[in-house]
Formats: sequence, structure tokens, C-alpha cells
Amino acid sequence: MILAFASVLGNQESKAIADFLHAQGIEFKLAVNQGRSVFITRKNLDPFQKASVSGLLSDVQFFDPGTPYQLASAQWKTEKTIIEVKGARIGGDEVSIIAGPCAVESEKQLYSIGEYLQSRGIRFMRGGAYKPRTSPYAFQGLKLEGLKLLKEVADTYQMRVVTELMDLSYLEEVYDYADVIQIGTRNMFNYTLLRELGKIDKPIMLKRGFSARIDEWLQAAEYILLGGNEKVILCERGVRSFETGTRNTMDLASLALVKELSHLPVIADPSQGTGVRSLVTPMSLASIAAGADGLMIEVHEHPEEALSDGEQSLNFRDFDTLLKSCRSLFDVKSRSFDFEKNSVNFTSIK
Amino acid sequence: MILAFASVLGNQESKAIADFLHAQGIEFKLAVNQGRSVFITRKNLDPFQKASVSGLLSDVQFFDPGTPYQLASAQWKTEKTIIEVKGARIGGDEVSIIAGPCAVESEKQLYSIGEYLQSRGIRFMRGGAYKPRTSPYAFQGLKLEGLKLLKEVADTYQMRVVTELMDLSYLEEVYDYADVIQIGTRNMFNYTLLRELGKIDKPIMLKRGFSARIDEWLQAAEYILLGGNEKVILCERGVRSFETGTRNTMDLASLALVKELSHLPVIADPSQGTGVRSLVTPMSLASIAAGADGLMIEVHEHPEEALSDGEQSLNFRDFDTLLKSCRSLFDVKSRSFDFEKNSVNFTSIK
Amino acid sequence: MILAFASVLGNQESKAIADFLHAQGIEFKLAVNQGRSVFITRKNLDPFQKASVSGLLSDVQFFDPGTPYQLASAQWKTEKTIIEVKGARIGGDEVSIIAGPCAVESEKQLYSIGEYLQSRGIRFMRGGAYKPRTSPYAFQGLKLEGLKLLKEVADTYQMRVVTELMDLSYLEEVYDYADVIQIGTRNMFNYTLLRELGKIDKPIMLKRGFSARIDEWLQAAEYILLGGNEKVILCERGVRSFETGTRNTMDLASLALVKELSHLPVIADPSQGTGVRSLVTPMSLASIAAGADGLMIEVHEHPEEALSDGEQSLNFRDFDTLLKSCRSLFDVKSRSFDFEKNSVNFTSIK
Amino acid sequence: MILAFASVLGNQESKAIADFLHAQGIEFKLAVNQGRSVFITRKNLDPFQKASVSGLLSDVQFFDPGTPYQLASAQWKTEKTIIEVKGARIGGDEVSIIAGPCAVESEKQLYSIGEYLQSRGIRFMRGGAYKPRTSPYAFQGLKLEGLKLLKEVADTYQMRVVTELMDLSYLEEVYDYADVIQIGTRNMFNYTLLRELGKIDKPIMLKRGFSARIDEWLQAAEYILLGGNEKVILCERGVRSFETGTRNTMDLASLALVKELSHLPVIADPSQGTGVRSLVTPMSLASIAAGADGLMIEVHEHPEEALSDGEQSLNFRDFDTLLKSCRSLFDVKSRSFDFEKNSVNFTSIK
Repeated sequence: MILAFASVLGNQESKAIADFLHAQGIEFKLAVNQGRSVFITRKNLDPFQKASVSGLLSDVQFFDPGTPYQLASAQWKTEKTIIEVKGARIGGDEVSIIAGPCAVESEKQLYSIGEYLQSRGIRFMRGGAYKPRTSPYAFQGLKLEGLKLLKEVADTYQMRVVTELMDLSYLEEVYDYADVIQIGTRNMFNYTLLRELGKIDKPIMLKRGFSARIDEWLQAAEYILLGGNEKVILCERGVRSFETGTRNTMDLASLALVKELSHLPVIADPSQGTGVRSLVTPMSLASIAAGADGLMIEVHEHPEEALSDGEQSLNFRDFDTLLKSCRSLFDVKSRSFDFEKNSVNFTSIK
Repeated sequence: MILAFASVLGNQESKAIADFLHAQGIEFKLAVNQGRSVFITRKNLDPFQKASVSGLLSDVQFFDPGTPYQLASAQWKTEKTIIEVKGARIGGDEVSIIAGPCAVESEKQLYSIGEYLQSRGIRFMRGGAYKPRTSPYAFQGLKLEGLKLLKEVADTYQMRVVTELMDLSYLEEVYDYADVIQIGTRNMFNYTLLRELGKIDKPIMLKRGFSARIDEWLQAAEYILLGGNEKVILCERGVRSFETGTRNTMDLASLALVKELSHLPVIADPSQGTGVRSLVTPMSLASIAAGADGLMIEVHEHPEEALSDGEQSLNFRDFDTLLKSCRSLFDVKSRSFDFEKNSVNFTSIK
Repeated sequence: MILAFASVLGNQESKAIADFLHAQGIEFKLAVNQGRSVFITRKNLDPFQKASVSGLLSDVQFFDPGTPYQLASAQWKTEKTIIEVKGARIGGDEVSIIAGPCAVESEKQLYSIGEYLQSRGIRFMRGGAYKPRTSPYAFQGLKLEGLKLLKEVADTYQMRVVTELMDLSYLEEVYDYADVIQIGTRNMFNYTLLRELGKIDKPIMLKRGFSARIDEWLQAAEYILLGGNEKVILCERGVRSFETGTRNTMDLASLALVKELSHLPVIADPSQGTGVRSLVTPMSLASIAAGADGLMIEVHEHPEEALSDGEQSLNFRDFDTLLKSCRSLFDVKSRSFDFEKNSVNFTSIK
Repeated sequence: MILAFASVLGNQESKAIADFLHAQGIEFKLAVNQGRSVFITRKNLDPFQKASVSGLLSDVQFFDPGTPYQLASAQWKTEKTIIEVKGARIGGDEVSIIAGPCAVESEKQLYSIGEYLQSRGIRFMRGGAYKPRTSPYAFQGLKLEGLKLLKEVADTYQMRVVTELMDLSYLEEVYDYADVIQIGTRNMFNYTLLRELGKIDKPIMLKRGFSARIDEWLQAAEYILLGGNEKVILCERGVRSFETGTRNTMDLASLALVKELSHLPVIADPSQGTGVRSLVTPMSLASIAAGADGLMIEVHEHPEEALSDGEQSLNFRDFDTLLKSCRSLFDVKSRSFDFEKNSVNFTSIK
């Protein structure tokens, strides 16, 4: 298939091209990307057809995709995507921190965490209202009640809500309460869901499937972008492997590779990614060093009492340490390199 | 099994304990760790036997291993191991850089790389003389000639030689020319080899098997330590997964976990770990941030002409960039955090 | 949590137990399994509470689950489940064969395949109307039109329709046309979907997620069973691994293990499981030998022209070979095949 | 690189070709395969050089390898390799059974097992004398004493010895006592070892590395074949995956694929492959159905007392069941079992 697009496309020109393609018996789909109209056809146009389309519109471009995703690719859009969420931004020069409990449990719990996070300057609050659990007997979340509570607490402390949409049937309610809609690892391959998310105007945080290859992850993003929703944030949360010392195996190279292949922002979730509290801070630092645009961290006032995933949640003291480590990572010379001893003048290196 | 050890053990006391264990029909093995004699028995001693041994030696300690490795564990030795190599150190506060070509190819190549590395302050030179290759038809290395060349160049530029031992049959010659003996990913489970390495006095860099769990890796180290060689450096080089966008999947959480579980230094090999040149620098930074004590980097004057693994080798310009990035990681505020905007006074956080 | 259940439970007894649990402040859920009412509580009852419940109902049984799934377990139901589909059966002594194209493509294609399959005695026809595709640009299926066609052809040739439900939003239409509703590998973790399937009365074929552990697969089945739908067929279709010589790695031990752990029937899909035409027949035989209750095979008149997965589809001649191999495997008559009932004379097949 | 070979090659012709290649500055290696001399060069010959070589020898053939292995490929040798071991055969029409304890433990144990196996017609006896164990503290085998015992018992009961060579340093002793030398999963990538095995005249059973791709496995075989030892038996023993319900994940498609790609016989080890006693029989049947030329089964008189891997060993009663299941699978006589030759009356087995 190819993608033909025109940078500015009025109704008349649109119609002319559409008529031509119809006349040629070429099926197409019309999409919008970066303010441009895009004709997507399954088959490449032949030279005659290309010439005809070019005759109808001077600034048309033809794409013969070398990758199975187009709109998500760094070739399609060379500048990095920055996503605005009520005055905060994900992508660009800053590292964004999203924090909060694995699951919304109670009003008391959430206000306590919210107050704390605000005091540390955190601007995005996470919390699960609908929890996908492997066992049907495990705690499944407070659902709509949880969503409302999350929104209430986030509003109180001037934070933005990040929460998971588990299924299309909940889309309306999640849409009303979330500022960023999270798609969990188990739904990355849920193409029907992804297609619907392309039709809305809220940012989507698309977690990598725990056994998805990087190109499959970007193709999942393509499903959303193709619908017209350009606000996609990727999130690496570890893949499944033979290693049993950690809950998942974080693939940090995916962060660096995604930054090369795509213009989309990508964040890391070291809480899910490791499943081990003591590894959250080192993997947060490593994620940032690898190029992550942000972190998603599970924080709980009393992790040992959490109804879900307590063993990977940080308490307030640990989260303070994480924040300080993040700052000092870029702020002070906490470590030196042995090659520095040999008095090399690095400023002279081109 | 348990381990009983005594902090200072003369011949006479040793003999008394040995006689007692013999008399009790308890098989044991005598080892040396951290300057202490260690009796290793397959079965736990019963309370009477423990009392008897304590009567023979006042400062005895008994270990009931909760982990399948003991000498490698952080419980066994609480201070971090630092390994001295001709005045340079691996482990401790500094990050060590080991650099050089994948394979030793020619005198000209090696001198050129050596001169360059010295000019950048690098103190460890790597190079493969015996190359383990999947295909018997691929370039297998210059062997002894390569070893000699490596040593000659390293001496010329005051560097230490890091090179791989592929098999016991080469031990003598590799011992003569190497300062650090590298055990490759395919040999991590080669217990006969590991046992022999326990008998020598050169540092061993033990790469993680590409499908080894972390506990298996530490047990492999245990084989070496148990023989009496305490100079073991671990090296994470990526594990095998379903991902095809990178050659291996680097498991950086293993770095942080190994630092918790063990006193041994651990370094990272992002060249092998990713197999993609452009990912080497971000994964180097991430490895350091995750806690790596060093990096192993493939550097080649003309990577495109390398006889082996050129696609993952850095040229001199790229390596300069890596070094500068490593420095700036700890040196300057290259990035900021969005939570800083909210004017939190971090120094007030306990 | 525990499960307490009573073999015969009238409204009155139900109410008495419910009242008691309420009075004790014990949350519970009421389900139906094997014609019995089941009270599911999150916490174990204490001895006093158990005695009280036993007083209310003489034939109550208490389960303290050792596994995270109950209704799916071999302990819960000792006889094997056999699922009737319009007079054909899946589970039990016979091996069932489900065959048809990967995707429904055209009327001509489908009639041709249907006529052929009927001539071979096949009783279940598969065909994808909604295709989950990694790339949004790939052929997505004929959708409702495809469903109708599939039903029409299956009716013409007295076969039962097996087709995939990709999303809840299509449930009504798929329900109307399918005899067995297939849940694909990407949806095995879609708990919202599974819960809804528990409320309907059609058999569900639940494919194993391509990175799902066996216990997760059985817990996914538990979601359906817990809703009251007892007609669950499991389907092994290969897991994701590092191997690149095949599309997936078939885990045939899962067939034997599932037969031990559960009463549910389990079939194998060697077409998806290998992705290689020449491996479909040997892996079919191996699956049956490992204990599979059936096979799901992609058959296409002209695999080389298939719009989807042609490289793993068998043509008619290859499928004949498969059937003959299957028969000769079992000529000893320890098991029979369901297609034999339709009195095909295999010796006449060229 | 290419392989040029000549079907009959006297000393004189050999020398002429060698001289020519030398004169052209072409490095080569001389090997023997299927009774033919083989010149292996790293680079393809150019047309002029090919013409010259053809002039020196009329029946020369030139190979431009499309696969990284040649001698192991089905293209190189179209008829299937059958390996004779003291009158018994592996490969061909019969299925061979290799059975015995995981580790040689004692004279009593081994005689008891040996007597039993002979009574069932088994012709190959396995037993580990040198055990590769993950922990240095685990039982490491009886070593030379174990080897001698194994040979003694095998001789007493007219069986052939199959035992593992863990390291080159044991080659001489293992060579003296083994009829088939087993290379374990941890040594599949040990190229130095493989090269040495190419120089001996005993059959080698090469187990697949637990994370080796099929093409890597065949390349490992190539190392042996290239040295001149044509007696290579492959053995699938499960690969490493995320599944925790079984010890390894048996990749039975590898059996069928190897039979397509190579002329070498391939057997299956369901004991190691599953690690679960109850799965050994179904996976044995499945392996044979997938095309295995034989089975390797751990049998122990009292598995619960085994010093190593008892949980996957069959007792005598279970092994009888396995043999009977195998026989009934093939009563149709499309294949036979080698143990049947020894005229055991299975109907008399309780």
C-alpha cells in the first residue's frame, strides 16, 4: 500500500482526487495527519496514476512505505511530538513523572497520596479504578467510584489524571474522568479498541505488550494515529522472559530505539517493569539515561497494606529518594570515570 | 549443605576440625575465602556437632545457606569487592571503561586503535584472539599471534589486556598474555572451566550466559570463588528474547539486582547487548545509571571493514561522543524535571 | 478466598445462606457451576462459620483453593467435559477436526473449500471474518458480510461455524452466526470480554495467549466458567520464543499438562503454531499423541493466493495427506476421529 | 565461502589442486565427507579459477552455500544418515530407546536398572558419571568410577553406553567407556570441544542448547562433521521460556524441521524436556509422531530417592507403560521399535 498526501487540501481538491481514485477502481481511506489530508491506498499507484494525481494537486507526495507503520515513524514527522495535558507536557526536554497507587482503594488513601505528591511537585497522578487481574478472584478495582475519587483528588491537588481503560464498554466514563487514558499491556494488541481511540481527542498512553516486539508496538500506535488522534505516548513496562528474579525484564534499549524510529514520546514504568521495590530507583535513573521522556511510578503510603502490587510500590520516603536521585543524576558529580585521571582535555575533542 | 568457616585457621586447628568431621562421617571440602579457611559440608551439622566444632575454635561461624551460592553473596562479604589490575581498579566509586576491537585483525589496526584509546585515557584494552563463531566457516581469530599482538600494543600504550579464554586447552597461553581473562557467554555454564579458573590468580570477567538466570550466573561465579580465586567481575551482555530489533535484550535490572545480591563488581557490554551502533551510547549511560561498575565497548577505526561484528562497533568519533556523554551525565544539568518547576525545596526533604 | 458450594440449592436455602453471610459481614458472589449453586467468598470461613453454614444445608462442601482457578480444575470436576455442538462433540474419545481458510475471502473461495471439506467428513468449518492484523494497513477481513457467507456455506454443507470474536462490540452479530466463538491469542487476557462470554450459552474456544503461562490460560478460562458458561474449549497455538525457524514455538507439553490440571477439552492449532506448511502434518500427529482433543487446520484451495497466512495453509492434496496420516496413526483404534463417522472411503482418495 | 569437492581424490590430484589454490593465494582447508575429499575455501572461486580446478579434475563440484551449514544439510546428503553402534542403529525406520538413570549412583542401583532394561529389550543404557550442576554444592557425579561401573553393567546386559562428556580434559576416559558420547545442552556452543569431537570415530549425541536456535544447532553439528566425524545424532531436550509449569518447553516442531533441513538422525529427551514425570509418556508419543528417531528416558528403580532429577525419572512400572504406549501407537507397523527385536512379550508385562 502507499500513502499519498497533500499539505493543504480543500474540499474541492479532495473531491477531485477522490473521484479520480474511484474512477480508477482504487480503494482508499482518507485520514488527517499533522494538519494534512492523507489518502491511504492498499496498492501503489502506477506511474500514470501518480502523474494524474500530481496534475490535480501540485504539492502532493507519494509514500512507498518501507516500514509497516508510517504515521508513527520518524520519517513521517521529523520533529518530536510533545503532548500538552492541561498545561503540563510529555515529550520534549523535560522528564515527566506520573505517580500514584497501583489501585484506587479508598478516599483516605488517595487524599493522603495526593497531598504528598503535590508537595513534591508531581503533576500527573496515576491510579487504577478498573484492574485487569489474572485471577477472577483477585481485587478488581473500585470502578466508576474509583474514577470519580481519582478525579476529585487530582482536582484538589492540581494534578492530571492518568488511568487505565480496560475495555471499550467503559470508554465514556473513563473519557470523562481521565486526562491521559492508559492502555494496558494486555490490550496493546486489541485493535478494535485502538481504532476507537483514534477517534477521540485525549492523549493515549500505550503500554508495550509484554511480549510485543518493538515494531508491533509502533504498529499498535499506528492504529490510533490513523484514526486521527495524534496524542500517543508509548510506555515500556518490561517484557516476559525466562528470568525469575524480576517480575518482568525491562528492555531499556527499546526506549532508545523508539526514539530513533518514531517521533512519539516514550516513558518507562519501572514499578511494573521490575516488580521489586529496591530496583525501581536504579531502573528509573537508567530509563532516563536511555532516553525516556518520563517515568510512571507506583507510590503508596503503606505499600505493605496495598490491595494490589504492594511489593513494587514505593513509600513516601523511598519516593523522595527517587526524586533526589533523579535530580542528582543531572546535578552533581556523584561518580567519576577512571579515564579522567589521565588528564584528557575533553573540551578539545570535536 | 552448610559452610562453616573460621577467621584465622592454623594448620593445627584445621587438622583438629578435619579430624572431628572425619570421625563424624561428614564429608567436607576445604576452601579459602577472604583470607579465611572454609569448611564446606553437604549436610548441616547437628547442634552437638556445632558445639563440638565451636569448642575446637572460638571464632567459628556457621552458615545455613538460604541461597544456592554463598561466597558470591552480599551476606558472605558485606563490603564491595574492588579488583586491582596493575594499578587500575574495577569496582568501587569509579566507572571503568574497557575498549577495543571485537577481534584482533592486524598489527596496523591494533596500533591505530591503541594509540587512540590511550589518547582518551582508556586503561583497559579488549580484543578477541580466539573468536567463538556460530558458523565454523566464519573468521575464527588470529589465535596466539593475536594474543601476542594485543599484549604488545597494550604494553606500548600502558593499557591492561582483557581477552577471552575459549577453552581450557588455551589457558596457559591466555594466562601469559591477559591481565583480565574474559569468559564468554557460551562458556558461563562450562563448570569444568570455571573450576580451573578458581585455581589461578588472575581476574576473571564472567559474562552472563545469554539465557542464564541471575541466580545461575552467581552460581557460576561461585564455582570460581570456591576454588580460591576471589577476583571475579560479572558482565551483563544481554539475554535472548523474542525481540528482533536488537541483537540481544539487555537486562539492566540485573545490574542493580546483582549489586544487591552480591559483593562482586558488575559491568555492562552494550555493544554485544544491543548489536546496534546507535544504541551503544544510550545503553552505556543507562547501564551506569543502573549501577554498572564499568563498560565494555567495541571500538574500531573503520567499523564497516571489521571482520567481526562491525555493525555494533563505534568509530573514534562515536566513541568520543560516548565518553563526553558519560561525563556530561554526571557533570552538567543536561535535562531538567518538570516537578522542579513547582519550586519544591529538595534540600528540606529528609 | 474460598468457594463454598451446595449441590442442590433452592431459593429458600440460598437466601438463608446469603443472609447468614451478610450478617457475618462476608462479601460473596453467587455463581452456577455443573448445575450447582456456588458461593464465592474472598476470605476463608472460620470453623464457627463453616459449622453454621453446614447447619443450614446438609450437603455443603467447602473448598480452600490451592490453585488460583477452581472451576477449571480437575479437582472441581473429575469427569472430562464434552461439548456438544449441533450433534457433534468436542472432548471425549474422538479427535475433532476444524478446518477452513484463515480468512473468508469470497463466495467462490468458501463454497469450494466447504464442498471439499464436507466430502472428507469434516464437521467444523473455520474462517476469519474479522481479522486482527498487526498492521492497520493489512487486510482486515470481510466482517459481517464474511460472517454471513461463512454461515451460508456451513449450512449448505452441514458444518458448524467456528469464527473469531475480536471485540465485545461485535458480540451480537458473531453470536448469531457462530456455533463456536473463537477468542484469539491477543484477547486471552481481555478480562472484560471473558466475563461477558460467561453470560452466553455458546461454546467458547479460548486460544492461549502467545506469552501466557498455562496457569494464566486456565485462569482466563475461569473468568468464563465463573459467569456460568461451562462450554470452554482450550486451544494451544504456540508461544513466542527466540526461535526464528518457525512462526511460534508449539508447547505440546501444555496439552498433556492441561489434561491433567483441568477437565476442559483442549485442541491444537499447528497452522498458527508453526507457520510453516510442511510442519502442519507432523505437528498435528504429535498434538494428538500428546493428548489433544482436536485440531484446527488452515485449508485453502490455492494457499499461494490467500490474502492472509497462505504460507501456513494446506491445499486440498496436503490436507488429504494429513487426514490419512491421522487415521493411520490410530488404526489401532485406541481413538477414532469424528470425521470418520461421515463414512468417507479414504482409500479412494488419491 | 564455498566448498569445492571431488568424489574420488588421489594424493596426486589432491596435490595438484592444493598447489593451484596456493598459487592463487586462496586459503583452504581439506576435509573428508561421505568418502569424498572436500576443499573448503573462505571466498568463492572466480570463473577462471573454477575452470582451472575443473581442468585438474573432471568430476569436481562447486558449492556456493546458501545456508551457514553445509555438511549437515539435506542438500549435501540426500539419504538419511543411519548410525551403527555395535550392531544397533540410530536413524532409519526404527525408533531407538535410550534409558537409564540421570546419574550413576551405585553398583546396586545400576545393576538393578540394567537387569530391568535388558528384560524389556532396551539396547542403549544412559547414565551420568560427570554431572554438570548449576550449584557447585550439588552432587557432581561419581566420575571415572561411575564410568567404569556403567560400562561393566552395560556389558553384563549387552547394552551400549551413552554418557556425557563435560569437558575435553575427560575425553580420553569417556572415549574408552562410552559407545555414544553425549554433549550436554550447556556445551552445544563449546566450539573447541566440538572441533575435537570431529577428530574421533565415536558417535556424538549433540543436545540442543537450551536457548539455541535450530540453525545454531545445525551449525554446531557442522563443527563436528567438518572435522571428519560423520556420526552425529541430534537431541531435542527443550528450550528455555517464560513457562514455569514445566522445566523446559519442548520444541517438537524442531524435530520435524531438522528432518527436513538435515540428513542427521534426531531424538527427543522428554525427561529433561518436561521435568515432570507424568508428562514423559505423552511427550514421548508426541515426539515419535513428530518424527523423532529415538527417545532418551530417565529411568530409576526408586525415583524418589534419586540423587539427581528424581522428579522427572520414571520407575519401572511407568516405563513399562511408556513402552506399551509406544508400541500401541505403532501397532499399525508403519514403524517399529528397536527394543522389539529382543523378543520381549509385552502382553506378559503386568
